[in-house]
Amino acid sequence: MKSKAPRKEEGQAPFAYEGLDRVIHERARLSVLTSLVTHPKGLTFADLKQLCALTDGNLSRHLRVLERGKLVAIVKGHDRNRPLTVCHITASGRKRYLEYLETLEQVVRDAARAGAEKPGPEIVRELAPSRV
Amino acid sequence: MKSKAPRKEEGQAPFAYEGLDRVIHERARLSVLTSLVTHPKGLTFADLKQLCALTDGNLSRHLRVLERGKLVAIVKGHDRNRPLTVCHITASGRKRYLEYLETLEQVVRDAARAGAEKPGPEIVRELAPSRV
Repeated sequence: MKSKAPRKEEGQAPFAYEGLDRVIHERARLSVLTSLVTHPKGLTFADLKQLCALTDGNLSRHLRVLERGKLVAIVKGHDRNRPLTVCHITASGRKRYLEYLETLEQVVRDAARAGAEKPGPEIVRELAPSRV
Repeated sequence: MKSKAPRKEEGQAPFAYEGLDRVIHERARLSVLTSLVTHPKGLTFADLKQLCALTDGNLSRHLRVLERGKLVAIVKGHDRNRPLTVCHITASGRKRYLEYLETLEQVVRDAARAGAEKPGPEIVRELAPSRV
């Protein structure tokens, strides 16, 4: 099992974050994939539009990119004679999403370790003394 | 063709992640800003190139975007008669980065809550029972 995010030469370029797969990292696609990974039974086109606050055109465009990359499968069917499009994340899409997520967690850890978090009502962490 | 306007209320669009500021979210810029937020004394152009594994051209291009957005300040000086460029994150850059980070953490939490994390040697979390 490959659990390490594909970071190249971590020692030399610890902030390169090679694991931030560009197909997934784009904001709308990250929204769509996070919706789908949390809804393993799939979501309709209309559900996704609402959950991700995307227009028809934008959602279609990004779904095409995800489908071409085999991250998402789209099934066009009917429900009571009305067309119904249902989207699922594929097994390989889920795997790539989870690898992406590891790098995302790394970004959050790197920032937190440096005391970048602000002490506030929502997030209170141990802080290194700030020099700024 | 304009279809429906994207809806912004989080209750309706919990996966929209409006906080993923596009200026920061781009992978190279996220690398640069995370490097700078963890190095409050600033970093030279050469340091940044290495830490983020970027070419001269790419780093210059992204630094210009960050400088135009007032997230980063760039000081050109000299060190023993050789030109030396030092980059800092600005106070407003730090603030925007921290706001961005909160949304990033939300993405990680959303994915984790759905049991999207895999139990592995590196990351073991409490998991909701997976339906997949």
